[in-house]
Amino acid sequence: MNITKAVITAAGKDQRRLPLQNLVDRTGQSKSALTIILDEVFAAGIEETAVIVCPGDIPSFSAAAGEHASKIRFIEQNDPKGYGDALLRARSFTGTDSFLHLISDHLYLSFDPGRSCVAQLLETARGESVSVSAVQATRETKLPHYGAVGGVRVANKPGQYLIHQVLEKPTPTEAEQQLIVPGLRSGYYLCYFGIHVLTPGVMDLLDGQSAESGGTLSLSPALAELARREKYLALELRGRRYNIGLKYGLLTAQLALALAGNDREEVLSQMVELLAEKERHIQ
Amino acid sequence: MNITKAVITAAGKDQRRLPLQNLVDRTGQSKSALTIILDEVFAAGIEETAVIVCPGDIPSFSAAAGEHASKIRFIEQNDPKGYGDALLRARSFTGTDSFLHLISDHLYLSFDPGRSCVAQLLETARGESVSVSAVQATRETKLPHYGAVGGVRVANKPGQYLIHQVLEKPTPTEAEQQLIVPGLRSGYYLCYFGIHVLTPGVMDLLDGQSAESGGTLSLSPALAELARREKYLALELRGRRYNIGLKYGLLTAQLALALAGNDREEVLSQMVELLAEKERHIQ
Repeated sequence: MNITKAVITAAGKDQRRLPLQNLVDRTGQSKSALTIILDEVFAAGIEETAVIVCPGDIPSFSAAAGEHASKIRFIEQNDPKGYGDALLRARSFTGTDSFLHLISDHLYLSFDPGRSCVAQLLETARGESVSVSAVQATRETKLPHYGAVGGVRVANKPGQYLIHQVLEKPTPTEAEQQLIVPGLRSGYYLCYFGIHVLTPGVMDLLDGQSAESGGTLSLSPALAELARREKYLALELRGRRYNIGLKYGLLTAQLALALAGNDREEVLSQMVELLAEKERHIQ
Repeated sequence: MNITKAVITAAGKDQRRLPLQNLVDRTGQSKSALTIILDEVFAAGIEETAVIVCPGDIPSFSAAAGEHASKIRFIEQNDPKGYGDALLRARSFTGTDSFLHLISDHLYLSFDPGRSCVAQLLETARGESVSVSAVQATRETKLPHYGAVGGVRVANKPGQYLIHQVLEKPTPTEAEQQLIVPGLRSGYYLCYFGIHVLTPGVMDLLDGQSAESGGTLSLSPALAELARREKYLALELRGRRYNIGLKYGLLTAQLALALAGNDREEVLSQMVELLAEKERHIQ
């Protein structure tokens, strides 16, 4: 399966400023969150990316994309009808191709030296030639924040699951009835990580559900239908996601990047200095 | 001295995105750096603020000003000629009034419960009815980053100095010859903090120097001339400045705010958790 296109959704009203936030990446370079995501996407072999934005946001996003701007197709989401609707706006861009999809309010930190989270997911998708969503085993108490999947482990494929159900922000009861994954620690569920490789069939499903719903269109129902029609895998990545839209989310992501990167010692010193700081009129 | 107006300069090419960055303030509220500065300004009794921005930046700054937007007059700096030129653009706004002036790439953290850095400076300016610049005793090695003043302590006025010289980013030799402050620890100089109360005479001086220079206009020469013409004070504040334009400047400022605020325990826990983190597929 050849995957050369990515779609990043960044038109959510509460999320639209997050990709513009300044951070220092693991190598010690100051850049926008958007550029950190795009670095990972293009380094993994993606050639062109569509970014779905709010009307009016193209100039600021284009500036925040830095050197990647020439490989970005910006698409404005006029008359917005939710996350699924935002993704569907890229249908003419993705056409008949499978594509990588990322949300824009998360940053990813791989535990695997030399293989980013995106690269891990692409490797599996290219190998299996099916839709694959990155997932993370997540405590039941955090279910209200995520889409979650139910399924079974794939034999001899570490971290892979065959998905048979998808629910958006399930209640604990719904999760217990439909999303139990044999072998997963009790009280944990497989929640979406924010990175997917999707076959073009997902766009068809979104389009059909869009015509039916008329209102807000989310992604999970289309993915649930996908699981019924096609082989659809989940993959536990060796890495963590950081939601920069949470309170102190930027701080946590920045600390995680810095502590896993080239500037670890410098940042640790700064932390210690701040913690030790007494009132003084000297810097 | 009645001070009801403030001028914030935010048109520097490298600084223009900094006021738009998201932070959590000491009370635990998520807001832009611009709003954190404006909160401090308006809480100290300022009634109206001019913000000097790059052409095209008004929509994003207006959004970042949040609830304060209605009290802001935005002024675009077309044909920019430096920091002094940016400040001079507010001359019709300040008119014959003394005014508070802040740069927009620093955040301030007061050590004085209940009295912000801006409030400390305004109290002295209102009491003395002269121009007053906040200063911080700063190591000689950091002189290349700051404007610095020379002067003498004012008897019976803790933290006050009468300024007789101002130099922008002095060399160590220049500093030793012209900026030694009796009583200050050896190797330290009084450097600007980024908050000033200035009399309208400063605008006249800037205007005169602008006509002479034709090129870039900085603020320090006007302040040096001010010190020759008027009584001009420096005040060491009980607080610290955080330059959010430095590498890891946002991280350091955010940690400082959080550790001095309502969420100290929560953020300390997060720091410890991150430091202790091992690879695991669970969140």
